[in-house]
Amino acid sequence: MKKPRKPQIAVIGRDLHANEELLSEAEKVGRLIAEKGGILVCGGHGGIMRAAAKGAKSEGGLTVGILPELDKNNANEYIDIAIPTGMHQARNMIIPLAADAVIALAGGVGTLSEMCLAYIYRKPIIALVGHGGWSEKLAGSYIDEKKLVKIIPAHSAEEAVELAFKIIDESKK
Amino acid sequence: MKKPRKPQIAVIGRDLHANEELLSEAEKVGRLIAEKGGILVCGGHGGIMRAAAKGAKSEGGLTVGILPELDKNNANEYIDIAIPTGMHQARNMIIPLAADAVIALAGGVGTLSEMCLAYIYRKPIIALVGHGGWSEKLAGSYIDEKKLVKIIPAHSAEEAVELAFKIIDESKK
Amino acid sequence: MKKPRKPQIAVIGRDLHANEELLSEAEKVGRLIAEKGGILVCGGHGGIMRAAAKGAKSEGGLTVGILPELDKNNANEYIDIAIPTGMHQARNMIIPLAADAVIALAGGVGTLSEMCLAYIYRKPIIALVGHGGWSEKLAGSYIDEKKLVKIIPAHSAEEAVELAFKIIDESKK
Amino acid sequence: MKKPRKPQIAVIGRDLHANEELLSEAEKVGRLIAEKGGILVCGGHGGIMRAAAKGAKSEGGLTVGILPELDKNNANEYIDIAIPTGMHQARNMIIPLAADAVIALAGGVGTLSEMCLAYIYRKPIIALVGHGGWSEKLAGSYIDEKKLVKIIPAHSAEEAVELAFKIIDESKK
Repeated sequence: MKKPRKPQIAVIGRDLHANEELLSEAEKVGRLIAEKGGILVCGGHGGIMRAAAKGAKSEGGLTVGILPELDKNNANEYIDIAIPTGMHQARNMIIPLAADAVIALAGGVGTLSEMCLAYIYRKPIIALVGHGGWSEKLAGSYIDEKKLVKIIPAHSAEEAVELAFKIIDESKK
Repeated sequence: MKKPRKPQIAVIGRDLHANEELLSEAEKVGRLIAEKGGILVCGGHGGIMRAAAKGAKSEGGLTVGILPELDKNNANEYIDIAIPTGMHQARNMIIPLAADAVIALAGGVGTLSEMCLAYIYRKPIIALVGHGGWSEKLAGSYIDEKKLVKIIPAHSAEEAVELAFKIIDESKK
Repeated sequence: MKKPRKPQIAVIGRDLHANEELLSEAEKVGRLIAEKGGILVCGGHGGIMRAAAKGAKSEGGLTVGILPELDKNNANEYIDIAIPTGMHQARNMIIPLAADAVIALAGGVGTLSEMCLAYIYRKPIIALVGHGGWSEKLAGSYIDEKKLVKIIPAHSAEEAVELAFKIIDESKK
Repeated sequence: MKKPRKPQIAVIGRDLHANEELLSEAEKVGRLIAEKGGILVCGGHGGIMRAAAKGAKSEGGLTVGILPELDKNNANEYIDIAIPTGMHQARNMIIPLAADAVIALAGGVGTLSEMCLAYIYRKPIIALVGHGGWSEKLAGSYIDEKKLVKIIPAHSAEEAVELAFKIIDESKK
């Protein structure tokens, strides 16, 4: 019998201006996703995306980078599989679509647009709080009155990854 | 000599649950855009999009609907030019790209994602306040710390359209 | 009662290396589309796209350019409504989707990819013969064994435009 | 030092109507890609895509399916990583973009559109001959007069995969 596909978990967050503490948290998130057998999906660029991919690779995990540009070589050095879309910010739709759950760390406008699309497509969204940005602002609430999915707050990398796997497991029952 | 292209102004806002007052405001926005010689760009569906297109047509204006689905016939009856993208929510990137300025009326998650993309691509964004939704929440602020463009508040349909044309005119100087 | 939307007719063909005769034919196609009340849809760039748009404007017609890049200003000077997609060649799907019928003039690989997408989405495709390129090679045949739509040969600009309108009219019955 | 990313090789070809001999050839192509350490990229659906993924998995390889629809679960059972794009046929651009080389087996209009995009983006294209379809028709030629990349004929699964890896190796020198 064919084994089920491994969970694909997206980590989204800012490219630039991430401080050391936040990057270290992103790396931990990536590591824990790999430890638990998940595949890391991200935007393939720097900052939080690179830190999360670095963490996943430190545990021998698998990493996917979905890029806005045409060139595979723009993926960071921790990306195993580079998927260039050539569609600029429209790739922000493909990242949540490719995810069974999304973990948001801080993040500016790009992250917010990905949270919106994850919400529209009813993906579980976990927001790591304590680091500012849109994940902090939206944690615990719905993005709009349609109340499609609540943004679930997590207070540590461990809690964020545990929540992601728990929700994915429950969705299979 | 070839005349310059007419200004293309996007009106974004909720599809469902728009009350009569808001729809009437959207219709006024559409009408004023047409009066001033602008082309109305919108998502082509119902609610605010339909009301704005109806307003523009009442003044003999031109209306463009950029649709998420494959089928041209899903455009509302006030759309002159239907552009189906077949790309679901990724069409939310094309609407601001096609606009010289964006006017946001209330709006839920779809509108927020369009405001994000308008912001990323540095389009002037005018938010009509007084009707709740994301345009109200973000009016007067920047979406993130990059401070690319400030969301400009407007307190009436007239002010919103005047601001849009004024900003477009100034950008040409 | 609301009038029906005007027919949207896409003209596709090479950007570069179009000779004078071919450009003159493209201009005639654009002119005739406008004369008969159609809206010209094209890729918004140079060569055949520019010639067709020029022809349509000479008759006071309306022209739409669906661009691969982010910047509206890349549209040629005869485009009334510029729709930048920021999706590179993926915009080749939107052009046939926006069309009630597609007229192909000569054309290289870009045109071929648009003919493929028009075929997949079962749009009427008219190929102007006598100028080489993929429209010549495929005229009178089906692109694959699924036989979705036959590529209809036309031997002049007049015949191409007449066929396009005739097929659109018949599809409404 | 970080190891270089593994080569990503796209296998494209018809979904339906593939006969047993062709499916067996596709399976062999997938198996050989995995044996040589490549990652298989495909459209994630049935027919040749499924056979190639099955072959790759029989050697413990890694398989990526880039889907036209919104739902990850539409990927065939041999796909490890499902990337739903929600962009219908516009996903045909992402498959060649994600590839270091493309191997085309027979194929109808969908395959032809992917060959066009691979050609536009100057990806090495190997066409397995002897099974009809567009890979047969275009083998040994250029798609248009721009002569961007020649479609390289291969007469067996072994030759196709060897050529793909050889070209990728040479491009790194």
